[in-house]
Amino acid sequence: MNKVILLNKRPVGKPTLNDFKFNNDVIPVPLAEDMLLKTLYVSVDPYLRGRMNDSKSYVPSFEIGKPIQSGIIAEVADSTHSEFKKGDFVSGILDWKEYQVSNGKGLNKLDVNVSALSSYLGILGMTGITAYLGLTEIGAPKKGETIVVSGAAGAVGSVVGQIGKIMGCSVVGITGTDDKAELLKSKFKFDNAINYKTTPDLNLAIRNACPKGVDIYFDNVGGEISDAVLANINKYARLPVCGSISLYNDTEVSVGPRIQPIILTKSAMMRGFLVGDFSSKFPVAIKQLANWLKEGKLTYAETIINGFENIPQAFLDLFEGKNEGKMIVKI
Amino acid sequence: MNKVILLNKRPVGKPTLNDFKFNNDVIPVPLAEDMLLKTLYVSVDPYLRGRMNDSKSYVPSFEIGKPIQSGIIAEVADSTHSEFKKGDFVSGILDWKEYQVSNGKGLNKLDVNVSALSSYLGILGMTGITAYLGLTEIGAPKKGETIVVSGAAGAVGSVVGQIGKIMGCSVVGITGTDDKAELLKSKFKFDNAINYKTTPDLNLAIRNACPKGVDIYFDNVGGEISDAVLANINKYARLPVCGSISLYNDTEVSVGPRIQPIILTKSAMMRGFLVGDFSSKFPVAIKQLANWLKEGKLTYAETIINGFENIPQAFLDLFEGKNEGKMIVKI
Repeated sequence: MNKVILLNKRPVGKPTLNDFKFNNDVIPVPLAEDMLLKTLYVSVDPYLRGRMNDSKSYVPSFEIGKPIQSGIIAEVADSTHSEFKKGDFVSGILDWKEYQVSNGKGLNKLDVNVSALSSYLGILGMTGITAYLGLTEIGAPKKGETIVVSGAAGAVGSVVGQIGKIMGCSVVGITGTDDKAELLKSKFKFDNAINYKTTPDLNLAIRNACPKGVDIYFDNVGGEISDAVLANINKYARLPVCGSISLYNDTEVSVGPRIQPIILTKSAMMRGFLVGDFSSKFPVAIKQLANWLKEGKLTYAETIINGFENIPQAFLDLFEGKNEGKMIVKI
Repeated sequence: MNKVILLNKRPVGKPTLNDFKFNNDVIPVPLAEDMLLKTLYVSVDPYLRGRMNDSKSYVPSFEIGKPIQSGIIAEVADSTHSEFKKGDFVSGILDWKEYQVSNGKGLNKLDVNVSALSSYLGILGMTGITAYLGLTEIGAPKKGETIVVSGAAGAVGSVVGQIGKIMGCSVVGITGTDDKAELLKSKFKFDNAINYKTTPDLNLAIRNACPKGVDIYFDNVGGEISDAVLANINKYARLPVCGSISLYNDTEVSVGPRIQPIILTKSAMMRGFLVGDFSSKFPVAIKQLANWLKEGKLTYAETIINGFENIPQAFLDLFEGKNEGKMIVKI
């Protein structure tokens, strides 16, 4: 049997398990220059929420009744492909299926000697690359500057903070539990961490944590947290917008203080990005991340959930902030 | 007698004539290496509103009981200065006084053979430079792209649109009267103009006027006009924020739809600026603007009000959109 997960219906607001549907297919047989892939690790990511809508988002919408897709690590279980042999490990954007056939297009072969397989979904995968390129290409940190990261204990945020430290900056993380705030300081070496859920005045807390003001705000969440950070930016601040997870499940357009007057008076620069905007720089990013990892300058956290049947719940848990670092489902 | 205009009190919301105070001083006498300046033209600009508040804005606040300052063209009425002689014309940020003494610091000598004196407050002054550098440095227009300009019939907006046309772009202006909309198309060669006050659905009107979407939005006004433009931006749009005149007189923080989700999904870049951020490029900008002016590729509009005593009212009229092009008071 070959379990697959389809989009059952488009979520309204917060997604539920009913938005997903499990099916049993047969295990396909690879044709010439094809291979059979056995799914090992599945990445669940906040941006997938956008693809569940019937609207233009970063990337095309999922279709109802068709498989969901995300970043997946798979083992080549059978192959007639000249470049991939049985036993190889690959990563790519693949279907949520236990088994699937691929012609190899868009797949990367993975070296298990460099790092653990699952890390190719996180620190050495799209999330690590997103952190590195968003921070360096848009944030352009200079030694001694102050960086604030929201969603700081998430897959991207935890890497952004560490890179900021490597680059000689002061780094403050905003997160949603005391445990995560502690983790940011102990494991990821953030200078300071704020639990926005228990802080009565977030604006003030940021001001206290950033006595020299905020030069770079790496925004993963949007909403009121971002309002509070923006109130504390310095002249010439850079504001990479990587995600808006706090708003993804809104059914109406969220309103808040207009930010153009701050952007104007601070000569600040806000730029949204998709990691694909910088695709020509992926090789540089991966090499740098792998080096830092090898040198022990970078570490990472994973929240690993077991079982194919738990993929939808793991995705839902992202919006409750139940993950520390990269949320991955191990099959 | 030497009339001067002081800040009487800080405006709350929309400024009124009571916020200004007229005084009569004596005409000062220049000392060694000084000169006596006779004010000829006074620039009134929306950004001065920010300086009337007791808060951090672009530039330091005006002090209560002290003269207001703005861009001024003056004639040297008497001089002991080695570099300026009687009869020279100069521009600079000077006090709202009929006569004042200066040591020459920060003043530029003007060549009346290049262009009319008043143009050094507009097209060849800060407003022209602001238009040129904001559009080219942040907007970075490419031939065939679509530019939307708000406050389009104002001093900066009318120049932005013309430069956009010179650079081969399609240009749409947003303004507040039918007369100005007509002026944008006839005098300034905009491809299209929208009167936001009489347009029932601004979002739709922009979509219709920009069938290929908006690549650059040069924002002079902020508020709901900007909301409507942002709803129509293309992937990789650039959004220079030059002003927020619609919000300057607000007494509470204006709220509106959060823009980070649009910035994110469009990989857009929004950047606020003060013309001074690009000061190293002023000579290039002035040279280019003067060349285009000489070649007849650029034109400009001025609304000239007569009389020193009318400076405050001319300033107030900016917020009612009573100016076409640069608002100047001739003394």
